[in-house]
Amino acid sequence: MTDTQRPDTVSDTPIAATAAASAASTAFSLDAPAAQEVDALIIGAGPVGLFTAFQLGLQGVQAHICDTLPVMGGQCIELYADKPIYDIPGIPLCTGRELAAKLQQQIAPFAPIFHPRTQVAQVLAQGDGRWRVQLQGQEPGPDGGDGTTWLLARTIFVTAGVGAFVPKQLRLPGIEALVGRQVFYHPDPGDDWMAQQAAALAASRAPKIVVHGGDEAAVQAAVAAAQHPSLAKASVALLHRRDQFSAPQALLDALAALRASGRLEVVIGMPQSLEVAEDGAAARLQAMAYIDADGQDQRLPCDQLWVCQGISPKLGPLLEWGLAIEKKQLQVATDTFATSATGIYAAGDIVSYPGKRKLILSGFYEATMAAMAAIEYLRGEKLLLEYTTTSKRLHERLGVSHPD
Amino acid sequence: MTDTQRPDTVSDTPIAATAAASAASTAFSLDAPAAQEVDALIIGAGPVGLFTAFQLGLQGVQAHICDTLPVMGGQCIELYADKPIYDIPGIPLCTGRELAAKLQQQIAPFAPIFHPRTQVAQVLAQGDGRWRVQLQGQEPGPDGGDGTTWLLARTIFVTAGVGAFVPKQLRLPGIEALVGRQVFYHPDPGDDWMAQQAAALAASRAPKIVVHGGDEAAVQAAVAAAQHPSLAKASVALLHRRDQFSAPQALLDALAALRASGRLEVVIGMPQSLEVAEDGAAARLQAMAYIDADGQDQRLPCDQLWVCQGISPKLGPLLEWGLAIEKKQLQVATDTFATSATGIYAAGDIVSYPGKRKLILSGFYEATMAAMAAIEYLRGEKLLLEYTTTSKRLHERLGVSHPD
Ligand SMILES: Cc1cc2nc3c(=O)[nH]c(=O)nc-3n(C[C@H](O)[C@H](O)[C@H](O)COP(=O)(O)OP(=O)(O)OC[C@H]3O[C@@H](n4cnc5c(N)ncnc54)[C@H](O)[C@@H]3O)c2cc1C
Ligand SMILES: Cc1cc2nc3c(=O)[nH]c(=O)nc-3n(C[C@H](O)[C@H](O)[C@H](O)COP(=O)(O)OP(=O)(O)OC[C@H]3O[C@@H](n4cnc5c(N)ncnc54)[C@H](O)[C@@H]3O)c2cc1C
Repeated sequence: MTDTQRPDTVSDTPIAATAAASAASTAFSLDAPAAQEVDALIIGAGPVGLFTAFQLGLQGVQAHICDTLPVMGGQCIELYADKPIYDIPGIPLCTGRELAAKLQQQIAPFAPIFHPRTQVAQVLAQGDGRWRVQLQGQEPGPDGGDGTTWLLARTIFVTAGVGAFVPKQLRLPGIEALVGRQVFYHPDPGDDWMAQQAAALAASRAPKIVVHGGDEAAVQAAVAAAQHPSLAKASVALLHRRDQFSAPQALLDALAALRASGRLEVVIGMPQSLEVAEDGAAARLQAMAYIDADGQDQRLPCDQLWVCQGISPKLGPLLEWGLAIEKKQLQVATDTFATSATGIYAAGDIVSYPGKRKLILSGFYEATMAAMAAIEYLRGEKLLLEYTTTSKRLHERLGVSHPD
Repeated sequence: MTDTQRPDTVSDTPIAATAAASAASTAFSLDAPAAQEVDALIIGAGPVGLFTAFQLGLQGVQAHICDTLPVMGGQCIELYADKPIYDIPGIPLCTGRELAAKLQQQIAPFAPIFHPRTQVAQVLAQGDGRWRVQLQGQEPGPDGGDGTTWLLARTIFVTAGVGAFVPKQLRLPGIEALVGRQVFYHPDPGDDWMAQQAAALAASRAPKIVVHGGDEAAVQAAVAAAQHPSLAKASVALLHRRDQFSAPQALLDALAALRASGRLEVVIGMPQSLEVAEDGAAARLQAMAYIDADGQDQRLPCDQLWVCQGISPKLGPLLEWGLAIEKKQLQVATDTFATSATGIYAAGDIVSYPGKRKLILSGFYEATMAAMAAIEYLRGEKLLLEYTTTSKRLHERLGVSHPD
């Protein structure tokens, strides 16, 4: 992998504008952030993105895969992890989670590079046939930056399904300015993240954490906050519109125990507005106003607000990349699954073509067609079909050996 | 299922001639063989034919499937049963045999009707939108007929792969007249078949069986003949061009033991001609002339000749059905996988379209597209996509139940 300077923005052009672009010369600026050169970037780690990585790997190309979700599996893992699927050929029955796991096992020999919690925001034509892609992290990067990284990709596979799975936003005036400082969407309440919050709250004598939501992620976050040693001096409130939570029984039991002991308070209400104080340059969240079950206005002191209102798919930026789109589906050629932009392919729920049926199997096929067409594009020659059963070259890439 | 009279031959027209045919009135003849009416006939029980049956079953259509092979699985079972496949999505590794078994398990809820050892010889347009299909059995039928049955099919799926797997023929003058009486290709040496041969040989005091071939099927047949109680008085010779056999070790050990005991003789040589006597109306095989390892002419007495020279695919009759064909591939539309004839679809290795890659996965997808298009054709309305994960109707057909 080579790291390259990010070319100056003067060479950045949206996809549409380059449809007929010749290879323009590119100017480089020394202070632009570095971009990593990659042969293939897969946008979306749903079942179809994963199988794209498999077919690319079989052909010797290590793919980068990014997803807004922290884990691989797309809809299968996010929408029906524990429900059965019956129509994957050769698999009479599996759950969404099992399918995602099998696919990850299948691509493991090719060690694709996964960028979790990362949304592709921009795809810009370079003028030299490559694409400059902005990966927006949901958290600040390790370098203290805004968590954005850039890739320079020779080929891109848009396997974005029904859109990027992003947390549902809480629509209250002034909330945007607080996100990432005092307001967090769908936090991953692991040790590292908890320690970060403890550090951020260290200055406050009696910090107040409000978790907002009623599903498993909300209960999980509230219980984790109440139980975590580093947050022992913080008070924890779980705010939901009614006293009913949907989570596995063990988690509900933990919640009940913490309520009984007084360590965690459940507050019934609907958020109305945020109370913010000017604290030097930045605004500071101090409390949330809400309406309680009797319709009365109430106030809940609040140093951190963790919002867990579920995750839903948003097509978002993809619609603005300039690719040919109809009814929010990418238009593709059925012999190559190429989009309207050279080097950009698409497969799965995001694409449309005559006869398209939105099934996982369709996506697996489209991914295979796209990957093979892209390999031909990268190599500039026809791909000879080889069988995984008999090809020594494929066996080497798979890391298996067979006697003759 | 309804049994119908087979319409008179006056209404039979090859497919090509009916491209623009209107619904002609059909005359019935009472002495014509009965034809069974079926909604869907799948020609070829390879992986793609099997998955076609799955998708049809999901939509409530019970399919008939025929194959020249005695078992389901096509190339996977015939050409690489014990070799690994790595590129079926969600199945990191399976053998050809395992894939065939999984697919059979997957279609079991829909109880498709399998016609083994049956070759589709003719497909004739009925004039009423249906197709009259001749299934040629490799053995005489239970009714003593020639093993031919007729189906009247509303839709046909040609999943014939690289062709019908048929035994390689032994090309010796006069052999055709003996097939099915004294010459047998690739017999299935089960108890029933052995008992039949014992009965046929009962008149002879010291019957002589010659098995010709050097692979597993040849060794298996020779060992079975030598070991079977009902053939105890028959002598058994295994004729091959050299003293080297390719079969699993256990079978080779059994062969060695039978040779050592004198129960079975291995003869090294190349068949030259058959010695036939006129026996009333029919010719009677008496011996085979062959050339031995030293180039000398020899004679081997022979009442039955079992030929096991391997099985190879033959496109055969399919090329004459009048479907649009290019380079021995059926031309299909990529939105429906319909062939040039209404109601006839095709998928898998047999089809060609722009971008086609000959993979099992491609065939699974094409089968799904074809089955769904055919359902729309049969019902005369658009098919609403339902998920196997959530659809109660599909669960009922699959024979599974789920709590809400
Ligand atoms: C309840 C339910 C049951 C189903 N049952 C079946 C079934 O039985 N059989 C069947 O065949 N199908 C079924 N489906 C459909 C199946 O899940 C989809 O066809 C499949 O998930 C599509 O896969 P995909 O990889 O194209 O997209 P997705 O699974 O949607 O994955 C796309 C991924 O891309 C990510 N992404 C999108 N945009 C961006 C971006 N800009 N930056 C970063 N990441 C991004 C998303 O976060 C997501 O993880 C079912 C669907 C549902 C909802
Ligand atoms: C050694 C080898 C290794 C392979 N490895 C892989 C791999 O790793 N991955 C992969 O994706 N693919 C692989 N393939 C290719 C794969 O096997 C084929 O793509 C697949 O079998 C095609 O399936 P099908 O159902 O279309 O046809 P087939 O498997 O060929 O089945 C067609 C069936 O139709 C029957 N038939 C044909 N005509 C008639 C007729 N007129 N009447 C009755 N029956 C008829 C035949 O007897 C046959 O059983 C491999 C192939 C070989 C030979």
